Amino acid sequence: MASKRTPRASADELTSTFGALADPTRRAILAHLMSGEASVTELAEPFEMSMAAISKHLKILERAGLIARARAAQWRPCRITAAPLKDVADWVENYRMAWEQRLDRLHNYLSEVQAKEKKHGRGSK
Amino acid sequence: MASKRTPRASADELTSTFGALADPTRRAILAHLMSGEASVTELAEPFEMSMAAISKHLKILERAGLIARARAAQWRPCRITAAPLKDVADWVENYRMAWEQRLDRLHNYLSEVQAKEKKHGRGSK
Repeated sequence: MASKRTPRASADELTSTFGALADPTRRAILAHLMSGEASVTELAEPFEMSMAAISKHLKILERAGLIARARAAQWRPCRITAAPLKDVADWVENYRMAWEQRLDRLHNYLSEVQAKEKKHGRGSK
Repeated sequence: MASKRTPRASADELTSTFGALADPTRRAILAHLMSGEASVTELAEPFEMSMAAISKHLKILERAGLIARARAAQWRPCRITAAPLKDVADWVENYRMAWEQRLDRLHNYLSEVQAKEKKHGRGSK
C-alpha cells in the first residue's frame, strides 16, 4: 500500500540495498537523516565533496529505496525510507544462530577447561 | 581473543562486509555454509559458474571475514565466520526506530480514519 516492497525483499532489492550501504558517505547520509529531513546542501555540508558527488550518492540511495525526495517543495528535502533497512535486519536475523552458536561453543570450551582444572586441583582459589 | 574484529566494526570493515553481501551468489554461498563447512566443489555445484568465478566470490567473502578456509586439510573446506554479520545486525539496529516509527505513524493514521468514520456513522458493520 504505502510501500512498493514486498515483505520479503527480492534478491535484486537486497543486492541494491547492500550495494548502496557499501559506502561510508552514504551510511553517514542515512545517519544524518535519522534526525529528520534535510536538503542536499545540508547533507553535503559535513563532507569535503562536490555537490555533483553528493548528488550521485543520493541517486544511489534513492534507487535502492533508502531515501525519498519530496517533489513538491523547491528545495526537494530528502528523508530516510526505512523499509529496505528492515529487509536487511530480516535477512541478517537468519544468521543470528551462527554467531550465537559460536559464542556457545566458546562458552562450552571454557567450561570444559575449568572443569578439567578443578578435577586436577588447579582451579581452586 | 578469538576474533580480530572490535565489538564496533570500523567504517572500512562495514564497507567491505556490505560490498561482499551485495551479490546474490555470495549470499547463497553463506546460506549454504549455515548447514556446515563445504568444499569449493560443493559450493560451486548449484551455480552454473566456472570454478574461477566461484573462487573469486570466495576470495571476496574471505577478505570481508565472512568465511574462513581451513589451511591444514588438502580440500581446504570453507566455513562461515559470523562476526561481520553480527556487525551488520548491530549497525541496522540503530535504524529500527525509523521503520517502527513509520509503522506507528501508519497505525495512528488508520486509527484516526476509523475514528472519523465512526463519528460519521459509516464505520459500523
